[in-house]
Amino acid sequence: MPVNLSAPDPAQLRPVAGVRIGVAEAGIRKANRKDLTVFLLDEGASVAGVFTRNRFCAAPVQVCREHLARGAGIRAMVINTGNANAGTGAEGLVRARATCIAAARQLGLSPEQVLPFSTGVIMEPLPLERIEAGLPAALADARIDHWARAAEAIMTTDTVPKAASRRILIDGVPVTVTGISKGAGMIRPNMATMLGFVATDAAIAPELLPALVRQLADASFNSITIDGDTSTNDSFVLIATHQAAHARIDTLDSAAGRQLVAALTEVARELAQAIVRDGEGATKFITLRIEGGADEDECRRVGYAIAHSPLVKTAFFASDPNLGRILAAVGYAGIDDLDQTLIDLHLDDVHVATQGGRHPAYREEDGQRVMKQAEITVRVGLGRGNAAATLWTCDLSHDYVSINADYRS
Amino acid sequence: MPVNLSAPDPAQLRPVAGVRIGVAEAGIRKANRKDLTVFLLDEGASVAGVFTRNRFCAAPVQVCREHLARGAGIRAMVINTGNANAGTGAEGLVRARATCIAAARQLGLSPEQVLPFSTGVIMEPLPLERIEAGLPAALADARIDHWARAAEAIMTTDTVPKAASRRILIDGVPVTVTGISKGAGMIRPNMATMLGFVATDAAIAPELLPALVRQLADASFNSITIDGDTSTNDSFVLIATHQAAHARIDTLDSAAGRQLVAALTEVARELAQAIVRDGEGATKFITLRIEGGADEDECRRVGYAIAHSPLVKTAFFASDPNLGRILAAVGYAGIDDLDQTLIDLHLDDVHVATQGGRHPAYREEDGQRVMKQAEITVRVGLGRGNAAATLWTCDLSHDYVSINADYRS
Repeated sequence: MPVNLSAPDPAQLRPVAGVRIGVAEAGIRKANRKDLTVFLLDEGASVAGVFTRNRFCAAPVQVCREHLARGAGIRAMVINTGNANAGTGAEGLVRARATCIAAARQLGLSPEQVLPFSTGVIMEPLPLERIEAGLPAALADARIDHWARAAEAIMTTDTVPKAASRRILIDGVPVTVTGISKGAGMIRPNMATMLGFVATDAAIAPELLPALVRQLADASFNSITIDGDTSTNDSFVLIATHQAAHARIDTLDSAAGRQLVAALTEVARELAQAIVRDGEGATKFITLRIEGGADEDECRRVGYAIAHSPLVKTAFFASDPNLGRILAAVGYAGIDDLDQTLIDLHLDDVHVATQGGRHPAYREEDGQRVMKQAEITVRVGLGRGNAAATLWTCDLSHDYVSINADYRS
Repeated sequence: MPVNLSAPDPAQLRPVAGVRIGVAEAGIRKANRKDLTVFLLDEGASVAGVFTRNRFCAAPVQVCREHLARGAGIRAMVINTGNANAGTGAEGLVRARATCIAAARQLGLSPEQVLPFSTGVIMEPLPLERIEAGLPAALADARIDHWARAAEAIMTTDTVPKAASRRILIDGVPVTVTGISKGAGMIRPNMATMLGFVATDAAIAPELLPALVRQLADASFNSITIDGDTSTNDSFVLIATHQAAHARIDTLDSAAGRQLVAALTEVARELAQAIVRDGEGATKFITLRIEGGADEDECRRVGYAIAHSPLVKTAFFASDPNLGRILAAVGYAGIDDLDQTLIDLHLDDVHVATQGGRHPAYREEDGQRVMKQAEITVRVGLGRGNAAATLWTCDLSHDYVSINADYRS
C-alpha cells in the first residue's frame, strides 16, 4: 500500500505543446502488457538529462549520453520495460543503438536524434526484434494527451502510476509543466531503475537546460532513497519545446525564470516523492532534515546514513521510537570531527535528544505518538554551521523482503 | 537458526594463565540473567584494543581509550549487558568512570587500571547502582576456567555463545589463545555492539600489541558486516599475560611470531565469523572475495557495497541467482574509473559474468544450485591490479525485520 498516493487523474495532466506520446504492447517480457512507450518531440525542442552514477551503467544510458553530447536535436525517445539492457556487455550497446536506428528509420530521423531507455531484468539480452515489431503501433498511438497512459506503461513493480502537472502564467501566457516517473528499488523480477521525464512548453534558452536539469535532480530524484541501491539505469530527462508565446527566458535569475524553476521543481519533487511513497513495501513516508552542517554535502551524508540504516528503517516500520539508532547512524556517517555533544534530534515537534543525550523533557510516549504517523519528519542538528539538506525515504518492512526475495517469475 | 554454528564445548576452551573470569546476575535490565562479567588479569599483563569508528561512541569506549593511553597497566575489565551507556551525554561518562572506580576500590587498584564495556539499550541511563551491587558476586566467581560462562554472560540477542581456542607449541612450550565474542547488529531491544576479547599467555614484547590488535581486527572483526550499522560500542581487546615459558617474542617477523599471529588470527576470525553465522535472521553465510583491485581499500569498498545491498541480501535469502544485483552494487561502490567491461563474477565454481556481461556458458540452474547452499563464496574480479580483500556477511531475511521491528519489551 503506497503512503498517501493515488493514481493521477488523467484530466489533471495537461498536455505539453510539442510532445506526443504513444504506447504499445510489444510482449517484451510478458504478454498483454503495455511495455513500449515513445515520446515524439516537435522540431526545435531542447532536451537535457542526468543519469545514474553507477559505473556499471546500462547500455541505453551510455547511448543517451552519446546522443545528447552529439547535439543533433533530440526528436524521439523510446522506453521499454521488462528488460534493463544492463550487464549485457558489448552486445547490449549494439541493441540499444539498433533501437534508435529502428525508430529513426520509421520517423525519418538520424539515429542520434533518438534516446533509448530500458528498465527491467538485468543481465538478459534485450529482445530487440520485439521492440522493432512493436514500434509501428506505438508510433501510431502518439497523441498529446497520453501522459497518463505513458505513466502506466513505464511501470515495473510500481503499484500506482506516477504523474504530476502544473500550469503557470508567464507574462500572462499559460505555460505547462507535466511529467511522469517510475519506481526506485531495483526489484523483482530484478527490475532496475528510476525513470523521470518532465516536459514544458516554456520558451527558454536551450543552453540553460543542462544546468537546470541537474539543479532539478538535486532537489528531487537525487534526494530520495528507498534502499540505497543506485540502479544501473536511473535517468531523468527535461524537455523544453519552447512553444509557449511568452518572451524567451534567457536567465533563470529573472522573475519568469524563477517562476518556471519553481513549477519544474514542484513537479520533479512530486514525482520523486511519489517513488518513495510507492517504495517497495513502504508503510511510512519519512522526511529527513539535516541542519547545522558545515556544508550541504555532509548534511546529505548524514541523511543518507540514517536513510540507509536497516535498523532505523525497521524501527520506523515498527513505529518504535528506538531513536538511539538514529544517533548511531549520525555517528558513522563519516564526519571525522563530529562532536557528539552538539547533536540535537527532533521527531516532528518532539525534542528527543540534546547535547548528544536524551532531552530531559523527552517522554517515550511522545516519540511513540509521532512514530505511529504515516508521515514523519526527522530533524537532526549537527551544531557545526549553517548548511542544511532534506532527503525523503521510507521504512523497511516485511513486504520489502517478500517483494525482493520472490523468485523472478 | 545460526548458520553452521553451535555452542562451544567448555572443555575445548583452554584457560589462559593469568586470566580469571567471573560473572554475576546484576539485574541490569532483566532479572535472573547473567549480565555482569569481570576479567581479572595478573600483574604484568599487556592489553591493547581497537574501538568503534562511530563518532557517536559510547561513554565506556571513551573511557577505555583514555585508560589504555594512560598506560597504568590494565588489571581488570568490567562488562555489562542490558545497557550500552551510549547517547547518554556527560552523565554517561560519569557513570562509566564510576564503574571503574567501584571495581578498582574492591580490587585495590587505581581506576585507570580498569576498562569498562557496555552493550545493550542506547539512550537510557546506565543503572550504576546495580553494577556496583553486582560486582562482589562477579569478583567472587572469578576462575580461570570460566570462558564459556563469560561467552554466555556477554550475549545480547545472540542465539549461541561464541568462543574459540587454540593451543600451539612455541619452542616446545604450550601457548594458549582463547577468546569470546558477541553479536553484531544493533538490535532489539536496541542492543548495540560487537565485543571481542582474546587472550594469550604468550610472552611477547608489550610494545607489539597495539599494532597486532589492529592487524587482527582487520583480518577478522573489521571484515564482517551484518547490516552496515557500525555500533556505538564495538570493541576488540587483545590481552597477553606473558606467562608461557618460551623465549620472549620481540618481533612478529620471526618463526615464533608468525606462529602466534597465525593462532591469534584463527581465533579472532572464528569469533568474527561466528557473529555473522549468528547474524540477526541469517540463513546464509557468504564469503565475498574481491580480487584484481588497484589497492585493498577499493576491494573492501566493493565488498561492502555488495554486502550492504538489501537487494543482494534478499536475493541470497531467496536463493535467487539474481546476480545482476551484484554487478550493480560493484558499479556504485565508488570507483570512479571502473571499467565495467573488465568485471568478472564467480559464484563458487560457477563463472557467471565475464567482461561485464553474462558468461556465454553460464546457465541459471548452475547459479541456482550454488545459491541454495548455506555457505556461498562470491568472487568478483575488477581487472585493475593485484590487490584483494575478503569480507564475510549474511543474507537479509524476514526474521531480520521481525527481530528489529519488535517493540522493545
